[in-house]
Amino acid sequence: VETGRILKKIKKTKPLIHHITNWVTIYDCANIVKALGASPVMAHAGEEAADMARMAQAVVLNIGTLTEEVVRSMILAGKAANKKKIPVVLDVCGAGATKFRDDKCAEILGSVKVGIIKGNASEVARIAGENVATKGVDAADVGKDLVKLAKALAKARGCAVVITGKEDIVTDGKKTLLVKNGHEMMSCVVGTGCMAASLIGTFAAVDKDPVEAAAAALAVFGVAGELAARISKGPASFKEKLFDIISVIEGKTMRNMQRVEKA
Amino acid sequence: VETGRILKKIKKTKPLIHHITNWVTIYDCANIVKALGASPVMAHAGEEAADMARMAQAVVLNIGTLTEEVVRSMILAGKAANKKKIPVVLDVCGAGATKFRDDKCAEILGSVKVGIIKGNASEVARIAGENVATKGVDAADVGKDLVKLAKALAKARGCAVVITGKEDIVTDGKKTLLVKNGHEMMSCVVGTGCMAASLIGTFAAVDKDPVEAAAAALAVFGVAGELAARISKGPASFKEKLFDIISVIEGKTMRNMQRVEKA
Amino acid sequence: VETGRILKKIKKTKPLIHHITNWVTIYDCANIVKALGASPVMAHAGEEAADMARMAQAVVLNIGTLTEEVVRSMILAGKAANKKKIPVVLDVCGAGATKFRDDKCAEILGSVKVGIIKGNASEVARIAGENVATKGVDAADVGKDLVKLAKALAKARGCAVVITGKEDIVTDGKKTLLVKNGHEMMSCVVGTGCMAASLIGTFAAVDKDPVEAAAAALAVFGVAGELAARISKGPASFKEKLFDIISVIEGKTMRNMQRVEKA
Repeated sequence: VETGRILKKIKKTKPLIHHITNWVTIYDCANIVKALGASPVMAHAGEEAADMARMAQAVVLNIGTLTEEVVRSMILAGKAANKKKIPVVLDVCGAGATKFRDDKCAEILGSVKVGIIKGNASEVARIAGENVATKGVDAADVGKDLVKLAKALAKARGCAVVITGKEDIVTDGKKTLLVKNGHEMMSCVVGTGCMAASLIGTFAAVDKDPVEAAAAALAVFGVAGELAARISKGPASFKEKLFDIISVIEGKTMRNMQRVEKA
Repeated sequence: VETGRILKKIKKTKPLIHHITNWVTIYDCANIVKALGASPVMAHAGEEAADMARMAQAVVLNIGTLTEEVVRSMILAGKAANKKKIPVVLDVCGAGATKFRDDKCAEILGSVKVGIIKGNASEVARIAGENVATKGVDAADVGKDLVKLAKALAKARGCAVVITGKEDIVTDGKKTLLVKNGHEMMSCVVGTGCMAASLIGTFAAVDKDPVEAAAAALAVFGVAGELAARISKGPASFKEKLFDIISVIEGKTMRNMQRVEKA
Repeated sequence: VETGRILKKIKKTKPLIHHITNWVTIYDCANIVKALGASPVMAHAGEEAADMARMAQAVVLNIGTLTEEVVRSMILAGKAANKKKIPVVLDVCGAGATKFRDDKCAEILGSVKVGIIKGNASEVARIAGENVATKGVDAADVGKDLVKLAKALAKARGCAVVITGKEDIVTDGKKTLLVKNGHEMMSCVVGTGCMAASLIGTFAAVDKDPVEAAAAALAVFGVAGELAARISKGPASFKEKLFDIISVIEGKTMRNMQRVEKA
């Protein structure tokens, strides 16, 4: 995975990343895209969702604080993106927690050609049809072979699937990569899952292979997390360092620290 | 108040704290719950508010940026919580600023059995029927005996009442505690009032006595504020230290620094 | 521009600044007003928008994540403010990106007497009727004399106009000031544009001359940015320092560092 090359391309082309996301981590999603050198925009009104998506180089949808109305806008944005072959990332945040989330994920996936589905273990398992519950937005034990589950979902949906966790799994059903970077401190801060989806969207905006793009994005996030953890005293200083590092991380550091392996 | 014991129980049982809150401080509310070692979830759609509340160990409602629709979801969540005896905290943010806020507080309190009402002096005074105005969301002078006012409201409503301020007052009408920890820097940062409500909800999730839970939560917040103030250079670095400290604070520090007294 | 005097007056009178703003930077908008020593309140429900505006000393409207409903509340708040001669600031965030944003700006400007229109080059150019597109919420090249454009818009609308950029332009059509403070790091963090509007609103709350108020606010922001950049390691630590500095900045520093010039 040529992470350095993708990072350079992001800084050079400054892709516009349109988000329809949740109200909890919306700032961090925008800010992490900005830290990479790209251009975030958040716009959820039905009247402009499609117009904004058409201007963008990637669309990131996140159902963290979904409503009926916001999901309607997600579908408008997703369909507009599909027509122009703009990649769409869906963060299935909280799938498996309530019937409403499950239903709305099905509705989005039935209406929009999502390029990359991203979630934690229990969220993605639920999307794959498993009978598991997510505890709010935090992963629950699934007790399944997650690589197998991700591959099956990718094949069934004809898209890439990302399961985040101690080791991140990225697959399109054929090629499967494991991203072994990261630090436990990342799960002590709200929003790292959402930020990961925004990073994946930004990488997918400039790289056509969704598996490579997602793995590179997660490797950058993981390496930045490892570096930040070395110099921080708790979750809040960790988060500050994480953003500072992401704004300057480049190929050389990634070549030294990246741990992306074939499954 | 055995704060250390409650802190341990939070880390051990990782309660799910469902919030329906405002769009200003929603991230900090989630993040402070996470910093304590518990699991926050924010979900305000009417279609899932009750389902999410039923999964939770506490429900925190905050009317900071209320709308008709969001209040409807608060009532759905609150009623669902009531049926399962899950504690409900209501932050009456901005009560006394507009008729709409007063009306909606009355509607929530008339529909949901709120376990803990929390606000600043003028907000709580307004809920208690006093003719005072709140300046936006910042406390105005009430010119009354606040302990007496809180006790009377607690008795009238059959719940616990928290008035935050230089000294926090916590009462159920019978037992009244004063929390004398805290630092003036806490009022220089937006959201400390909202975070206090989230902390109270998290403590109430694992401790059945609402007075003890609320006093312990406010003591932790106050002690963390005192410690953070010692090593910060302004409101933003103060906030970072506050979160870092809350993620590691434990019984020993609390025993040394906690100043909770009977009124 | 007597920046020190205005800063003192803000700390002394603690004006209430009512915002109806976007969900991305709403926290930072509130927090920067608080850092200055004033009192922010965010309230977007149609039922209370006018009541809250009437209590305030300035109203800040920002269309960053506008919806039909929120714009309706902006107009209610703006009209209520107009009746009491409370200054209204409009951040035309993303104007020129979608037809919806253009239409809603026209609707707000047609219904409310806005005292200060603020945006980046392509946003303000679009409001002035130029055929330019904004890339999401980031400025695009306009290829025009921006001072001339700002002056013409100010005259046509009978208000002050602010164009932010490397040099900020502030004009009411007669008096035109250039604010030459600032640092490139400010464009590496999401929300500095929105925060600038909140600062302008806070200064306009205590100073009757909108050109002087806006220039002083932007000078404070720019000087704080220059000072923060000297001691920060990346965008996140920069932002922390920026808030810390804004909370203590005063006349002496401004007199030494302020670079406000007549155009």
